[in-house]
Amino acid sequence: MNVEMVNPFLVSLMNVLSTMAQVEAIMNKPTLKQGDRATGDVTGFIGLTSTNIKGSLAITFTESAIIQIASQMLGEVFEIIDESVIDAVGEITNMVSGGAKKILSEKGYKFNMAIPSVISGKDHIITHNTKGAIVLVPFETQAGSLFVEVCFEG
Amino acid sequence: MNVEMVNPFLVSLMNVLSTMAQVEAIMNKPTLKQGDRATGDVTGFIGLTSTNIKGSLAITFTESAIIQIASQMLGEVFEIIDESVIDAVGEITNMVSGGAKKILSEKGYKFNMAIPSVISGKDHIITHNTKGAIVLVPFETQAGSLFVEVCFEG
Repeated sequence: MNVEMVNPFLVSLMNVLSTMAQVEAIMNKPTLKQGDRATGDVTGFIGLTSTNIKGSLAITFTESAIIQIASQMLGEVFEIIDESVIDAVGEITNMVSGGAKKILSEKGYKFNMAIPSVISGKDHIITHNTKGAIVLVPFETQAGSLFVEVCFEG
Repeated sequence: MNVEMVNPFLVSLMNVLSTMAQVEAIMNKPTLKQGDRATGDVTGFIGLTSTNIKGSLAITFTESAIIQIASQMLGEVFEIIDESVIDAVGEITNMVSGGAKKILSEKGYKFNMAIPSVISGKDHIITHNTKGAIVLVPFETQAGSLFVEVCFEG
């Protein structure tokens, strides 16, 4: 896996948050260590496949971050992670992977996207079952933290 | 989506639990309602794609069920959901989707599998972001409950 395949997800996330929710996300240093795992309250998750590469993308939000993002995105004040907030996470995940898919396609990598899912539950942890590298990228927003994890194998 | 595409996952799960962990899982009535969602302590998750169909599989275990399954699978007594148990969930998810993929392929449905992931965290919930039907199938084992969710779209 190389930076060329990870960057489209990071660029796409910053675009989606900025245009859909007027939230500017500041990227912190990416890490590659397998032991580093995102902990958060709600995660958007999607699988990606091509004929010879498999991958996955997880976007994990703290409660405070997603509540502000969803409120600004939907023009409605949310106080808990309810069904509308969960739907917003699914939509963000879809848009981020769709945007990344388009950039990757222009670079010659053609992927199919699986059905996105949203995991909710206080302080859950996602563990990717792969021998490939996992890139964990923390982001800060004015409302709190979020984390992107991208892995590819094959 | 039809039963022909869901049954391979159920058959494959029962095979994997029986052969790898000597655990017999009894299938309860599947439901199709979108509001019914599995709640559990650890979930194995994998995305599936083909050129025109996308899908996902989630296997959600209660803590008591996965601790007994992992203990019998690995021949070691576990008391909490630790890294070895999480790895076992990833392996089970891989084997179940690999088995289902093989059966589906014989029926003419060719899928690519994404990287499996494992979500851990007390009482988390998985929500599939799809307009397609979601099949939720509860299973009982001597150690507790587990749930399979399969969805396809396209």
